[in-house]
Amino acid sequence: MTDNSRDFQLQCPLPIRRYPRVMVAHGGGGRLMNDLIREMILPAFDNPILSQTMDSASLRVPAGRLAFTTDSYVVKPLFFPGGDIGSMAVYGTVNDLAMIGARPLFLSAGFILEEGLPMETLWTVVQSMKRGAEKAGVTIVTGDTKVVDRGKGDGLFINTAGIGVLEHSLEIAPSQVKQGDVLLVNGDLGRHGIAVLAAREGLEFETSIESDSAPLADLVLTLLKGGIELHCLRDLTRGGLASALVEISEQAGLGLTIQEKSIPCRPDVRAICEVLGFDPLHVANEGRMVAFVPAEQADHALALMKGHEQGKDAVRIGQVTGVDCKGQVTLRSVIGANRLVDMLSGEQLPRIC
Amino acid sequence: MTDNSRDFQLQCPLPIRRYPRVMVAHGGGGRLMNDLIREMILPAFDNPILSQTMDSASLRVPAGRLAFTTDSYVVKPLFFPGGDIGSMAVYGTVNDLAMIGARPLFLSAGFILEEGLPMETLWTVVQSMKRGAEKAGVTIVTGDTKVVDRGKGDGLFINTAGIGVLEHSLEIAPSQVKQGDVLLVNGDLGRHGIAVLAAREGLEFETSIESDSAPLADLVLTLLKGGIELHCLRDLTRGGLASALVEISEQAGLGLTIQEKSIPCRPDVRAICEVLGFDPLHVANEGRMVAFVPAEQADHALALMKGHEQGKDAVRIGQVTGVDCKGQVTLRSVIGANRLVDMLSGEQLPRIC
Repeated sequence: MTDNSRDFQLQCPLPIRRYPRVMVAHGGGGRLMNDLIREMILPAFDNPILSQTMDSASLRVPAGRLAFTTDSYVVKPLFFPGGDIGSMAVYGTVNDLAMIGARPLFLSAGFILEEGLPMETLWTVVQSMKRGAEKAGVTIVTGDTKVVDRGKGDGLFINTAGIGVLEHSLEIAPSQVKQGDVLLVNGDLGRHGIAVLAAREGLEFETSIESDSAPLADLVLTLLKGGIELHCLRDLTRGGLASALVEISEQAGLGLTIQEKSIPCRPDVRAICEVLGFDPLHVANEGRMVAFVPAEQADHALALMKGHEQGKDAVRIGQVTGVDCKGQVTLRSVIGANRLVDMLSGEQLPRIC
Repeated sequence: MTDNSRDFQLQCPLPIRRYPRVMVAHGGGGRLMNDLIREMILPAFDNPILSQTMDSASLRVPAGRLAFTTDSYVVKPLFFPGGDIGSMAVYGTVNDLAMIGARPLFLSAGFILEEGLPMETLWTVVQSMKRGAEKAGVTIVTGDTKVVDRGKGDGLFINTAGIGVLEHSLEIAPSQVKQGDVLLVNGDLGRHGIAVLAAREGLEFETSIESDSAPLADLVLTLLKGGIELHCLRDLTRGGLASALVEISEQAGLGLTIQEKSIPCRPDVRAICEVLGFDPLHVANEGRMVAFVPAEQADHALALMKGHEQGKDAVRIGQVTGVDCKGQVTLRSVIGANRLVDMLSGEQLPRIC
């Protein structure tokens, strides 16, 4: 019996456990759905707003600007080293809020369950969301559960939407990127994509590769509190660092140059990428971001990052160079050669988030 | 060629049309996803906030209380008489905001597409969301697109989350329901469920039964503006009127009595329900709500409803009766007999929303 199974048997209330698998009726708006919500969801996300079980949550938010975002999570498999769909569904949306400098406050959670999903799986994911929300400092205040018939889903999809508050007056966006800005990333690249791929394909490596999945809002707030005038932030999810940089470069109308030798990537991850034909620049991360900061603040920003749990391996990877170089991202290789970095047409590793 | 196909050929930009079906790469964070967003989604939901294509939308909202809600939509089939998954995904979430008396302002839109979905279908749904948002007076400010491999979804699922503002100081909730309150519904019951079922099963009836799917926020705001002290509102979706009333009765700790002869249901819908063994009280609606209002305001509230497009067939269906009758909903039949109304354990018609 796994730890999860033991916890499930000991902690999951009987009205839930007596149905070992999710049934269509669990999404039907009747007694079974009520049980699912009252016995599993409400106790996990325990808070007075959600517990009112109204059609909408009623929230008090400070006056000013709010951030609002959404993401659906369809990662396959649901569990992988370093994370699972539940923690990811919390951190991913928290990170989207953080990328405009918002303090995340509230999340919604929408579940699309496939008939036949083991109830233990759902319970384990919900517990993971609970812990993720605690770690990220957000409250899950409203939700929805739908069940689709067997063969019409893939176990479990989760959508979260998030509301955050902007406590600064900066506009953190590609339009604010300026020539000379320095590019920082908060840690090594590529672990999330490789960890999910390995779990999906049953690959075994000599070393253990765990996803980098993590909430980044507190790191961003630390930079803001430290007086860093953040020009632009982007989390390096689908499409990896390459897509993020090309997009920002296109939107800013400025060229970027990054140094290959500064791109942080663990040797084992780099080796696996080489064997599988992936470029770490394109592999997705779930706890990594690029920050564009004014050159004169770069050292201070880097020091602040290094002092934070989510940025202890932060490095400077490049700078904003040419004007009139819309979309031009140059990688300066170790031997001094330059190559242009491009966005892929799709994703080399589908369903990693 | 259908009207949709013609519109698609004439109006959908070439970068989209040249892929007749959704591919996994359309969700990969690269060029194809960028094209999908820039050429299809942004022009349809055209607004300056969404067009910034940031990780989060930055919003200005009035100070005070906000409403926040989410729903995923998995209706099958995607199109049915009187609506489709797109308009439903807008109206359903708008209605959840309206049920605590909020004025809906902003929506998010999360798409989970199955590989192979005809691009024309997606385009048609997006156009329907655009029209729905215009009709409901909301702006779609942030979104997400994921693609799952063929056989791991069912064409298209949509999640919307919504933010609204509360411009009144009432608490509209089961806890506010009082003995003597009058129950009003805004129109005939059961059409949505039957319309979707008929479309799914290819049933043909002598008469045309269209879904009642509609946005209800303006109707609720009209009641509030008219000075009606709304005690509780509930939209009659999954589980129908029966589930809504049992839930409210349980939460309020009060008994409810409804008169069978006052329950509005079209004769053709009632006849089909009889043939198929459904109870119109349990069939889902997408543009119907029950309102609990103080007895002395019932006539005024009914008149206000009847003066509104979404309430012109409103009727009084019952009242709050016994105290200490938690969860007891009594249906008084035409011949004077009483029967208790209960919630079903699941849904008699799955995937109607």
